[in-house]
Amino acid sequence: MKIIYIEFFGYFAAILTTLAFIPQLIKTLKTKKAEDVSLTTLIMFLTGVSAWIIYGIQISSKPILIANIITFLLNFLILVFKLIYSKK
Amino acid sequence: MKIIYIEFFGYFAAILTTLAFIPQLIKTLKTKKAEDVSLTTLIMFLTGVSAWIIYGIQISSKPILIANIITFLLNFLILVFKLIYSKK
Repeated sequence: MKIIYIEFFGYFAAILTTLAFIPQLIKTLKTKKAEDVSLTTLIMFLTGVSAWIIYGIQISSKPILIANIITFLLNFLILVFKLIYSKK
Repeated sequence: MKIIYIEFFGYFAAILTTLAFIPQLIKTLKTKKAEDVSLTTLIMFLTGVSAWIIYGIQISSKPILIANIITFLLNFLILVFKLIYSKK
């Protein structure tokens, strides 16, 4: 199978699982609450995504690396806003 | 770097980003609502995870493959219960 074809799925996956968290962030900002979003899920997910970043560096997989850096940032923002809104 | 050391981060990442969705599923089942969880996020994420499964097969990465199959199942259940509870 051509390398370019394999990479397509990697980038397609990376783009979707990364952009997927933008609607969650927008929803949280709009409704000013994320009560139903699990805090434990966010913390475990951020820890796991950090490990994916290390793995991506080690196996030299750009899709894994780029996707997980952006995924980390978006989920970190969701976590921050969840905590801010829960205190109000 | 030793292969076994590289694989450690892959499996650690895979386990965490997979198990991360269990607390969300439990929370959704307990509170019987997932109103704050974005539907668009769930649909985009499930589509992306499907593409990661294909990529995992293509680059022969067991951590990517196993993690994404279980991640898909857990998020699919979260989506199903979100829809069930939103109709009540």
